[in-house]
Amino acid sequence: MKKEIFINRAGREIPTYIEGYGDVKGYEGPFAVEPTGEKYAPQKSGSKPGLKKVLSNLKEAIQNSGLKDGMTVSFHHHLRNGDYVLNMVMDEIANMGIKDITICASSLTKAHEPLVEHIKNGVVTGLETSGLRGNIAKEIAKNNILGKPVIFRSHGGRARAIEAGDVKIDVAFIAAPTCDTMGNMNGKDGKSAFGVMGYPMVDAKYAAKVIAITDNLVAFPLVDVSISMSDVDYVVVVDSIGDPEKIATGATRVTKNPTDLLIAEEAAKVLVASGLVKDGFAFQAGSGGASLAVCKFLREYMESNQIKGSFAAGGITAYLVELLEAGLFNALLDVQTFDGAAASSVDRNRNHVEMSASTYANPHNKGCSAHQLDMMILSATEIDTDFNINSITGSTGIIMGALGGAPDTAAGANLTVVVAPTMRKRIPIILDKVTNVATPGETIDVLVTERGICINPRRTDLIEKMELAGIELKTIEHLKNEVEILTGKPERVSYEDTIVGIIEYRDGTVLDVIRQVKA
Amino acid sequence: MKKEIFINRAGREIPTYIEGYGDVKGYEGPFAVEPTGEKYAPQKSGSKPGLKKVLSNLKEAIQNSGLKDGMTVSFHHHLRNGDYVLNMVMDEIANMGIKDITICASSLTKAHEPLVEHIKNGVVTGLETSGLRGNIAKEIAKNNILGKPVIFRSHGGRARAIEAGDVKIDVAFIAAPTCDTMGNMNGKDGKSAFGVMGYPMVDAKYAAKVIAITDNLVAFPLVDVSISMSDVDYVVVVDSIGDPEKIATGATRVTKNPTDLLIAEEAAKVLVASGLVKDGFAFQAGSGGASLAVCKFLREYMESNQIKGSFAAGGITAYLVELLEAGLFNALLDVQTFDGAAASSVDRNRNHVEMSASTYANPHNKGCSAHQLDMMILSATEIDTDFNINSITGSTGIIMGALGGAPDTAAGANLTVVVAPTMRKRIPIILDKVTNVATPGETIDVLVTERGICINPRRTDLIEKMELAGIELKTIEHLKNEVEILTGKPERVSYEDTIVGIIEYRDGTVLDVIRQVKA
Repeated sequence: MKKEIFINRAGREIPTYIEGYGDVKGYEGPFAVEPTGEKYAPQKSGSKPGLKKVLSNLKEAIQNSGLKDGMTVSFHHHLRNGDYVLNMVMDEIANMGIKDITICASSLTKAHEPLVEHIKNGVVTGLETSGLRGNIAKEIAKNNILGKPVIFRSHGGRARAIEAGDVKIDVAFIAAPTCDTMGNMNGKDGKSAFGVMGYPMVDAKYAAKVIAITDNLVAFPLVDVSISMSDVDYVVVVDSIGDPEKIATGATRVTKNPTDLLIAEEAAKVLVASGLVKDGFAFQAGSGGASLAVCKFLREYMESNQIKGSFAAGGITAYLVELLEAGLFNALLDVQTFDGAAASSVDRNRNHVEMSASTYANPHNKGCSAHQLDMMILSATEIDTDFNINSITGSTGIIMGALGGAPDTAAGANLTVVVAPTMRKRIPIILDKVTNVATPGETIDVLVTERGICINPRRTDLIEKMELAGIELKTIEHLKNEVEILTGKPERVSYEDTIVGIIEYRDGTVLDVIRQVKA
Repeated sequence: MKKEIFINRAGREIPTYIEGYGDVKGYEGPFAVEPTGEKYAPQKSGSKPGLKKVLSNLKEAIQNSGLKDGMTVSFHHHLRNGDYVLNMVMDEIANMGIKDITICASSLTKAHEPLVEHIKNGVVTGLETSGLRGNIAKEIAKNNILGKPVIFRSHGGRARAIEAGDVKIDVAFIAAPTCDTMGNMNGKDGKSAFGVMGYPMVDAKYAAKVIAITDNLVAFPLVDVSISMSDVDYVVVVDSIGDPEKIATGATRVTKNPTDLLIAEEAAKVLVASGLVKDGFAFQAGSGGASLAVCKFLREYMESNQIKGSFAAGGITAYLVELLEAGLFNALLDVQTFDGAAASSVDRNRNHVEMSASTYANPHNKGCSAHQLDMMILSATEIDTDFNINSITGSTGIIMGALGGAPDTAAGANLTVVVAPTMRKRIPIILDKVTNVATPGETIDVLVTERGICINPRRTDLIEKMELAGIELKTIEHLKNEVEILTGKPERVSYEDTIVGIIEYRDGTVLDVIRQVKA
């Protein structure tokens, strides 16, 4: 097969065909792909009187599910770094001698490093995820241990792919902090409570078989149900599904770094100057860095101007719960709960609402809430002069991040603001071309750094508003040059020809490819 | 085409092919049909930023939905005799000149009598429903105004048929007591609150287009969501969707009739003697007659023996709410709320749980709650010596009732008890053959009347238990003869050859046909 190369609308060189993936449809713009045809039709099933769903162990459940070589299993990452379930299941699958398994996970964390061995042993031969970090990521990016590309999808893109049948899940394994004997479950109660179950809600609807794994089996009927028994085949009880203490580690800390706080304060000024911070506005801030800190400054403005927002959305933290409880927002729309305080909130506060990943961010959903956002705050590891954002690879070319909901919310929000320092460890953040494009520049409106604010030239309306508000702007090229005087030009990474990762845009087109880093 | 006749397992004569319906698969037993193949795959859709779902009127919504001659629309009957929405929509469809429409309704009530004109005018040419009463029923049964058979389905059978694609809904019209601007809705709040939205939850998932009709539009996001914006295309605001005062009329009154109370008391004794009334048991009573009164006697036994049940299910009334609040059941599983007190309960009590018609009663659902029942109490207009039940036609052959959830719960429950007087207006209830079979006799265990108790000979275990408890039994043939001495043998109805109704069993097979009554 002749491998031709084309340049997609994000300016990236993409082959027309990729081994282990197939024919490529390149990215053509944030809303270029119209939904056509039918959704994926899952297998019919049923339940007779007297049916017992609770099985004696994981092995029995895997056997009953009919899992075989070559099939696809799915997992969710609500327990983040504290998740025990993925490793437990994959160890059992390996013990049972099943091979050639594709894992479709909502994301993978450092907790999942045992996967390296399962990949090397041929138990796992495909990975689809929002993010990848640590040793798995290094082994794939440097040594191509998987032998075919990892497919990276945003949270909305994953929901779309499952609903469209781009990925067909044979068995979904769902970590359930509370589950009844018929498979009704929620994530809010029990010793391993993590909050909402936004990601596996989609898997449960479309997987051929669904196995709930719980450390808190309760009598039927559980009354607070996030995933219904109508979607569950088997229930397995284990000692522990994870360590909820480890949920809040990683990407969810609010910064105390003075640079980040300065950036956040500037970003809040941009939001205000945009005129969008008014009664009934909708807001989301991504996790990490200065992103969450923007809420602090926004809050001050809302309080002194008596503004009440409509909703705040996304991954929900204790700080957003404070804003809800202070009456600054009517509701929180929660796809993933980031800490114990937020998990407790969703359990008791009717205005803290659970939503599925599809309702959150799927572009081919009639009610995508990301499309209701007035403003979105994002972090980035790199940004280029076309405002393309990288959040998935480092400047070394090694995979070390995630798409998350960034491509979804950036496309949906009226105003998308990237907050980032101009350099990290003397490595510049603003580049001519990002190492990889995770979120297309045409969906990014503003970059706020500690050395200045840049607006995407596409948004002449915003430039006008900032000037009216007396906010000083720089062109992104100017800011880039200013920083490079301090840092020097960054070295280019050298790559092999082999593709180790594919970054799908949320609509299923290919936004970029990640190539193997030269040793 | 040669029309052959065969006798199905319920002993009914059925043609192998029915004009306006197609090839017939006869009933072969309550769990004879295994679910195979895929569920119906609805059209993909999407939503872009800035989308406005609220349209200016019903006409605009119908136009935007693409509704055309020959298509199928759906409605729900949670507003029962107080529903304004079906007539409002059908009048608009008629005004727009659209014809040849099939209505797939969860049920039809006396409120829908204007349908007679729409049928006569060719606007409506197909009806699929759980029940039919009043003039529409008479005009169809006597004069065959529809020109092809009405398809009757139980609540679980309808959910199954929609999920399987046996019926493809082009546009679902959903009466929404509260709805936000993006289509999130619930039935619990607003001036026309009726409680849960169990039936249209299924329509919303599978219809190509979904139109919410509300008299209480609220700001996005509604936080207590029964049907998600993810399933809704358009929102229309009207003055009033119905009169909630008229919900409780009809089939839901608790009896004060002394015969019914006697029957209910005897039925409660049977339940107790069965040994099933113990901690954690699950219970449902159908609406009407002596059925609900059984709860009163059951309650007394539970209280004096300190028994706490697991759940009571089905259509929920104020009396079941009392039982929940008295701590006699852990939960109510509610597919349809029958009165204001119950609607208020589901709005405030976490243990009063909303469920979809599919989760309630669909045999091809992984978690059918009807299959979790220990005991079910049913009413009947007729029962025959094979224990077949008729709840859909009168002794005159005229359609005047509904299947409801009876076929579903009778198949699912461990113990199904029919409560009925032996005669009504000197017409005997027990017959050699019922006028029509609505629920097959092999799923019925006990008949309790004011003149004696009969047990299905199939249930030798139950006969033994009743005898041990000192409960006197009669054979159903004996009781029939005893009653006929008082009433005389009922006259047989004379029929034309034309089939005006098809009674589908919950699995989609044909249980019986209803023929046109001779003038």
